Amino acid sequence: MSDTLGELRAALRAFAAERDWDQFHSPRNLATALAVEAAELLEPFQWLTDAQSRDLPPETRAAVEAELADVLLYLVRLADKLGVDLDAAARAKMRRNAEKYPVDKSRGSSRKYDAL
Amino acid sequence: MSDTLGELRAALRAFAAERDWDQFHSPRNLATALAVEAAELLEPFQWLTDAQSRDLPPETRAAVEAELADVLLYLVRLADKLGVDLDAAARAKMRRNAEKYPVDKSRGSSRKYDAL
Amino acid sequence: MSDTLGELRAALRAFAAERDWDQFHSPRNLATALAVEAAELLEPFQWLTDAQSRDLPPETRAAVEAELADVLLYLVRLADKLGVDLDAAARAKMRRNAEKYPVDKSRGSSRKYDAL
Amino acid sequence: MSDTLGELRAALRAFAAERDWDQFHSPRNLATALAVEAAELLEPFQWLTDAQSRDLPPETRAAVEAELADVLLYLVRLADKLGVDLDAAARAKMRRNAEKYPVDKSRGSSRKYDAL
Repeated sequence: MSDTLGELRAALRAFAAERDWDQFHSPRNLATALAVEAAELLEPFQWLTDAQSRDLPPETRAAVEAELADVLLYLVRLADKLGVDLDAAARAKMRRNAEKYPVDKSRGSSRKYDAL
Repeated sequence: MSDTLGELRAALRAFAAERDWDQFHSPRNLATALAVEAAELLEPFQWLTDAQSRDLPPETRAAVEAELADVLLYLVRLADKLGVDLDAAARAKMRRNAEKYPVDKSRGSSRKYDAL
Repeated sequence: MSDTLGELRAALRAFAAERDWDQFHSPRNLATALAVEAAELLEPFQWLTDAQSRDLPPETRAAVEAELADVLLYLVRLADKLGVDLDAAARAKMRRNAEKYPVDKSRGSSRKYDAL
Repeated sequence: MSDTLGELRAALRAFAAERDWDQFHSPRNLATALAVEAAELLEPFQWLTDAQSRDLPPETRAAVEAELADVLLYLVRLADKLGVDLDAAARAKMRRNAEKYPVDKSRGSSRKYDAL
């Protein structure tokens, strides 16, 4: 099977099983860990301008890459524990976003859909 | 190409291009949006016990599913804007985690690697 | 003047002025820094049970104390930059919470006000 | 007693006692709620420029004011549950910050203390 999300899910299951970590992996704990990682990913950007954030120094970039990975790993694990098909959920969300943000109304605007 | 992450990346690029949203999608802004979504995902869990979080009522579950999708979409978009291969980054992180958390030392423990 | 919030506000103004940091202290940047600090405060709790979180080891407790302080400092600074009277805002919120959560309806329940 | 933090602490204690909410107010739960509120405070800023964030429209400003209050209320409550003197912790942190960021080294720079 060639799909990344499915492979990561299987690898994370095996990783937790070998370490007897399922006891800690309640959806609640995983959602907390995910939010903590998302904030760690935000941390290096907090004092940067938009322009600076597009051109990270190599060390920052490596740290950001590791945090992106952490977020993905917790996300896949949380979805697995909740029995959510992350792929299907993302595609469904893309369709809803296309309805909420019609091209003609949202073009060039950063407003939220309920303020368009 | 059958891979979810690659397909989402392409769909998100097209979505932003049609709406002229690349101007808003600096890594800094996307990292902020991702952290906000991760906290929205955490919100329904905040007063639940671990047991309750494993057995969500249908309405909460649907909301959580949509938030999981939002996190994935911003994650894929941010990685794309930074030129990071999310798949490779996640696999590299899995390998580092296996080194940091050897089975014999971490079995049944929720301690951080530097406290094992 | 004996009020903590007023004193902290003045001390933070002086601190930023001496370092020429007002240029970085946009509300947007400060709100980001505050969210990052709140997640750092959450980090040591992420794998703890409720009971464990009530009885922190001394080292964790010291770290948590420093993070509580960081959150307060950014909060006071952000309110100052927005011209918000934090004291008045908190008192107003307490009154609204008393209306949203009447004692007879919310007693012993962790439900949100719109689900009471 | 004229101090805001002390008054809020007492008001929050009474509020929780009347509603029998101490059972939900573990430090862990309160730290989670605080992080969720901090992200809600960040949410209206996520697509704004620094300049826009200094000049919020009235509706956004009112929402931000309520979120600032929420963060303060959870912060005071969490510190109370942990037995932390928030005032003393903030003053201690100000002193440490003054040592970590000497005026001559940090003037006009947004670098972290370990990169000065």
